[in-house]
Amino acid sequence: MNSFVNFFMNVDIFGYFAAILTTAAFLPQLIKTLKTKKADDVSLTTLIMFIIGVLSWIIYGYKISSLPILIANLITLILNLMILISKVYFSKNLNV
Amino acid sequence: MNSFVNFFMNVDIFGYFAAILTTAAFLPQLIKTLKTKKADDVSLTTLIMFIIGVLSWIIYGYKISSLPILIANLITLILNLMILISKVYFSKNLNV
Repeated sequence: MNSFVNFFMNVDIFGYFAAILTTAAFLPQLIKTLKTKKADDVSLTTLIMFIIGVLSWIIYGYKISSLPILIANLITLILNLMILISKVYFSKNLNV
Repeated sequence: MNSFVNFFMNVDIFGYFAAILTTAAFLPQLIKTLKTKKADDVSLTTLIMFIIGVLSWIIYGYKISSLPILIANLITLILNLMILISKVYFSKNLNV
């Protein structure tokens, strides 16, 4: 029982929970964009800045040999690249 | 000169650069939403999941006494809360 309590009181659990949520959060945006076939209200500048930032996290994660940072940001990168590609593909005129 | 090169070759520089970009990235989205007075294409589920995730990063940052994690995520939280509030305020019908 104690180890069970310890598991949930563990500090790392917040880190893993945070990493999973801030990564998986982009899946509903991708699904919504593919369903509605538009993402005009989604800022292109935000997407580009965020993708460059996530790429930097991947370099950082690789350099400090942190697998959690590497994996979480690789998934975030793929999802945001797909959102960016969908937005550009569906948009008639690019709104920054 | 060497210390100048060392500064830019430093691993941490990628971490700081990444943190600044993935935080500041939400500012253009907020400005766009306030300007166009709509964010229908922005997923509500994404915003809510992301905000809960960022809150978990803040708890994690506090527990491991990491000021960079704490500061970056506090700013990210404020920006995303403002995007969420703007979206809900401007939307006639909530699209998840």
